[in-house]
Amino acid sequence: MTSDGASGGAGGESVLLRAVRILETLTPDTPALTVTEIARRSGLHVATASRLVASLVGLGLLTRRPDRRLTVGVRLWELASRASPALGLREAAMPFLEDLHAVVGHSVQLGVLDGAEVIFVERLVAPGAVVNFTRIAGRLPVHASSSGVVLLAHAPPELQEEVLAAPLERFTARTVTTPDRLRALLADVRRQGAAVLPGHLHADAAGVAVPVRDAVGAVVAALSVVVPDDGSAHLRVPLLQASARGIGRALAGPVTTRNSSR
Amino acid sequence: MTSDGASGGAGGESVLLRAVRILETLTPDTPALTVTEIARRSGLHVATASRLVASLVGLGLLTRRPDRRLTVGVRLWELASRASPALGLREAAMPFLEDLHAVVGHSVQLGVLDGAEVIFVERLVAPGAVVNFTRIAGRLPVHASSSGVVLLAHAPPELQEEVLAAPLERFTARTVTTPDRLRALLADVRRQGAAVLPGHLHADAAGVAVPVRDAVGAVVAALSVVVPDDGSAHLRVPLLQASARGIGRALAGPVTTRNSSR
Repeated sequence: MTSDGASGGAGGESVLLRAVRILETLTPDTPALTVTEIARRSGLHVATASRLVASLVGLGLLTRRPDRRLTVGVRLWELASRASPALGLREAAMPFLEDLHAVVGHSVQLGVLDGAEVIFVERLVAPGAVVNFTRIAGRLPVHASSSGVVLLAHAPPELQEEVLAAPLERFTARTVTTPDRLRALLADVRRQGAAVLPGHLHADAAGVAVPVRDAVGAVVAALSVVVPDDGSAHLRVPLLQASARGIGRALAGPVTTRNSSR
Repeated sequence: MTSDGASGGAGGESVLLRAVRILETLTPDTPALTVTEIARRSGLHVATASRLVASLVGLGLLTRRPDRRLTVGVRLWELASRASPALGLREAAMPFLEDLHAVVGHSVQLGVLDGAEVIFVERLVAPGAVVNFTRIAGRLPVHASSSGVVLLAHAPPELQEEVLAAPLERFTARTVTTPDRLRALLADVRRQGAAVLPGHLHADAAGVAVPVRDAVGAVVAALSVVVPDDGSAHLRVPLLQASARGIGRALAGPVTTRNSSR
């Protein structure tokens, strides 16, 4: 193996990859696991998992709780968050998300593209809100979510072709599952500057999303709300577009034009 | 070196530690660096840094921008965030932080203890707000910030003694810098259930913090506001205490008792 261990090792798999496989076992549904559970879920030998877990705990990337279960360490969260481009976007967007949330109620979220999925960097949700599948740091497929369709409509052509060529999973009777219909939907979204997807992901909910553009006009995120599917979802578009313009302005420069005291 | 590379390697330093040293070079002030800059700041040879950076990019933990600079990857943020205990706390607290922010204006923040420092897991800030040193995923020393004093007052005795035995950095004329005065302050905070620190960190600002307790009464976070130092900071305490109780309730169970539509 090479001296930095970035490749090689047992089975040619790198230390870093094995560390990632360990971190991947900790999910919203399983945020705290024993070493044995981590070994089983990561497919690593218990001895290997145990050694790597000890190193990760030593570096603060994992935390060992009093009950011996492992959780994500504050240090890992800090390293990932403090210089994250997603966090800068999120901070610029936050005042606008708060205002939208206060006015619209239900769920307001901000998503970015990662591969062929949307990952949500922020989400404000009302407890009594309509059903919503998103979580912070959670993912949704691009073809079935309003945020995803907005991001895909402005993504590089190669990514669009990749998604159009792959199977399009059906979530409801209204999910777009054929390449032709998805292609037409993307064209609509580009023309209208918004995606309104009633019942595409869940029968009772409608997603409405608009693009957030940076100073040079590139689409860097999707701003979306999830509301009841009562036929009025499209009425949210102008409000979302106004908020998205505000976020774009905040991204472009210091946030000095807006006074959020209410 | 061991087969998993968690220890050993050049100079006996582990791959994981070197990966962390690389990630540490990306900060709020330097969120995008070239490989050469990363090598210099991490103290690694360019060849070593280059190899490790390539592995980190391959795993999605770093992203190489079109200008070749490296940034924190969405995948790293996702792994750190989706199962983070800090994020669960933050999600439970968010509706209350929004309400506080709307009512108090200025800055509202939620901090947890990591070693002898406070790390802020959430922060809502008004653009026209009084000066504030916190950032999301930023740190402050425990002795000089209201959040820190609250967390230290309820920390294990060993940690208290460790902080009391170390030098206490002075930020303003009013910073508490002697062990005796800090010990008295911690006792006050425990008795009064709040910390009010006018001008301890910055001459023009006052920090006010209260503990957030989980279902069994353990202090898990500090809820704080930073307001102008006009002598009225202590008037915020009851509002903060009411919000902290709400957060504690939300932490204890499903958030079903509160309707955030406004």
